[in-house]
Amino acid sequence: MATPGAGAEPLAIQQPEYDERVRRVRQALAERGLDALVLFHPIRMAYVAGFFHLQTERPIALVVPVDGDLGVLVPHLERLQGSALAGVGHVKTYPEYPTGGTKHPMEHLRDLLSEMGLAGKRLGYDHDGHHDVNSYDGPPLSEVFEGHTERARDIVDTLRLVKSENELRLIRESARWGDLAHRTMHERVTLGCSPLAVSIAASADASLAMIAALGPGYRPRTIGNGTPALVRFKAGANTLVQHGAIAGHGVRRGDVLVTYAIADVGGYHSELERTMIVGEPNDDFVKYFELMVRLQQVAFGALKPGRPLAEAEAEVCRAYEDLGAARFQQHHSGHGLGLEGHEAPFIDKGDERLIQENMVVSVEPGLYVPGLAGFRHSDTAVVKAGGAEPITTYPRDLTSLTVRV
Amino acid sequence: MATPGAGAEPLAIQQPEYDERVRRVRQALAERGLDALVLFHPIRMAYVAGFFHLQTERPIALVVPVDGDLGVLVPHLERLQGSALAGVGHVKTYPEYPTGGTKHPMEHLRDLLSEMGLAGKRLGYDHDGHHDVNSYDGPPLSEVFEGHTERARDIVDTLRLVKSENELRLIRESARWGDLAHRTMHERVTLGCSPLAVSIAASADASLAMIAALGPGYRPRTIGNGTPALVRFKAGANTLVQHGAIAGHGVRRGDVLVTYAIADVGGYHSELERTMIVGEPNDDFVKYFELMVRLQQVAFGALKPGRPLAEAEAEVCRAYEDLGAARFQQHHSGHGLGLEGHEAPFIDKGDERLIQENMVVSVEPGLYVPGLAGFRHSDTAVVKAGGAEPITTYPRDLTSLTVRV
Repeated sequence: MATPGAGAEPLAIQQPEYDERVRRVRQALAERGLDALVLFHPIRMAYVAGFFHLQTERPIALVVPVDGDLGVLVPHLERLQGSALAGVGHVKTYPEYPTGGTKHPMEHLRDLLSEMGLAGKRLGYDHDGHHDVNSYDGPPLSEVFEGHTERARDIVDTLRLVKSENELRLIRESARWGDLAHRTMHERVTLGCSPLAVSIAASADASLAMIAALGPGYRPRTIGNGTPALVRFKAGANTLVQHGAIAGHGVRRGDVLVTYAIADVGGYHSELERTMIVGEPNDDFVKYFELMVRLQQVAFGALKPGRPLAEAEAEVCRAYEDLGAARFQQHHSGHGLGLEGHEAPFIDKGDERLIQENMVVSVEPGLYVPGLAGFRHSDTAVVKAGGAEPITTYPRDLTSLTVRV
Repeated sequence: MATPGAGAEPLAIQQPEYDERVRRVRQALAERGLDALVLFHPIRMAYVAGFFHLQTERPIALVVPVDGDLGVLVPHLERLQGSALAGVGHVKTYPEYPTGGTKHPMEHLRDLLSEMGLAGKRLGYDHDGHHDVNSYDGPPLSEVFEGHTERARDIVDTLRLVKSENELRLIRESARWGDLAHRTMHERVTLGCSPLAVSIAASADASLAMIAALGPGYRPRTIGNGTPALVRFKAGANTLVQHGAIAGHGVRRGDVLVTYAIADVGGYHSELERTMIVGEPNDDFVKYFELMVRLQQVAFGALKPGRPLAEAEAEVCRAYEDLGAARFQQHHSGHGLGLEGHEAPFIDKGDERLIQENMVVSVEPGLYVPGLAGFRHSDTAVVKAGGAEPITTYPRDLTSLTVRV
């Protein structure tokens, strides 16, 4: 097995890129006549300022003013992380959630905004207050702040749509480790094995290889409780259900497997999915497998810069119809990837945004054949002039994806 | 190592208990003059109807009318899960998110509400529309629905505060596997080991033992990408940071470790945390360790039914002051546990709710001594007449928690 190698570049976004992101946020604020942007979503804070943290019931907010130092609201116990952030000049801590006393964290946020000279000014927000997570309860920002507020999360989300060279590098590195996790799993599938047990063991072994290779500087960023590299698979009838929990029954000869591998490198994700067969495939399997592979090729080619995503998706849908497979389609052809495993844009008839070079998307048209199985390859791909080019390189052909038992 | 054993009872909430939860939701709706409750949060749907699913950008909603069949909104690809739910008589599917065509999922939700006879009626919701997750964007429920809407998530969250006998059984079973994960990690800590590597390997091994013992019926429910049993630890100065990412540097003699172990049984969680020392502790360590253990004992005793949580927390805070440790306190004494790892109620000066028998909380007063380390045990405890009784049984004493190197 080839061991993926880390490059010489650090596997994280560096400060100059965060500075540039902040500059672009400020530019958008100025264009809209807003005095500051208040972010509550952890991924948006990570994107803008490298502030990676676990979201809980304790509100955390990042304030990006149109000029001057950034501000953060953090619970007392997270003050060290908050004050270590570059560019932050205002750190407001509160004792606890619900209050640790008498004053709600959102009132402390109002104080922070006043200290930053923003009282009565015009604020954009990504979400009107802290999210509905871990029983958090509290007033929206628009209620505690006396001044104009408006929804402006697209300021950050628009920047996230197209990836920088550094982001692409992290996503490519992620793909290498997703590939290793997938290979580790592939080698362990045997008759009677438990999909859950094989997934757990392969994820651990691939993750241990990954962190050993990446060295002591590696930090998991956006995987929550997951392993740094992670692989899972579903077998048999379970493959008809896209996001269902994986069951523990044993793999049987003739089972179709649908797999899923990801890895977290500097907080960035890739996605790799393969449809596999245990033992010799029958004619039905071969037919749908090859249809699915053809549809994926259509999708790669359809993702050309300058046309709307909806138009690319319409082209894939026409291919489903031309191939007599429209009744087996259950979902659109893919979604964006970056700091989140699913993020905008979407390869969907309802997404009218233009395809741009260096967008990163999953390409995964699927076929779900009742009574038989689900068929789906998913590759992480970067949009280039001629279409989407896969970053994930795991073999896509039937011979490679047949488990010999 | 003793192997925890699963009981004869199924390790999941059974239908009669879901029926009872729905009955209590309907009763609360009737008392408030509401015709239905619309739930968007996956944990609340799991609680009320056993509808466990992964939340993504594709909205899912559960509608509980004051009488009659339940309704669900699901994307086409999840229709099998949606229609398999007990008590559901109305399943509305939409093609995709953003639309898969022209109509936003929230408009399909409006259609579902009409089909259920709820047009123009009075609705409660847990959140005003689908959450801000994976770049989802869409109108709030209050905008698409022509009729009265109001926030009523407390109808479900209030039910969740006190655990049933079955919930307690699942949390106890979870605690057994968290204990095994912790023990597996404990046995592997050596000088120079990577906290991240040991955490990954121990989590995998404990999870493999867990799923083998619980049998093929075991399904992970609420752990996302995590392993069924999971353990982590931080070493040295990292212990001063509560929710920081764990770094990969090697464990050194004299390091303080703060650990964290959880497990998912039927979707229910327990939490086990221990403060450990690598090699012989020095006097400073012993002093703060013993202070922390004393504070935890105070907290167990303070959690008596019938008094407000705020009063119990005030008693713990007085103990911090009496022991001269107030300046090392960074957070309140604990939080509820159930389907989420953190949930209401909170042992906090701002939580005026009354303590009730069979509430389940973490009990974890901590000390964070600048320049030295963080000190925190966390036990999952159930409130009984005389105070909170720990469910987690891992040793709490210094001798047991000293890593011999």
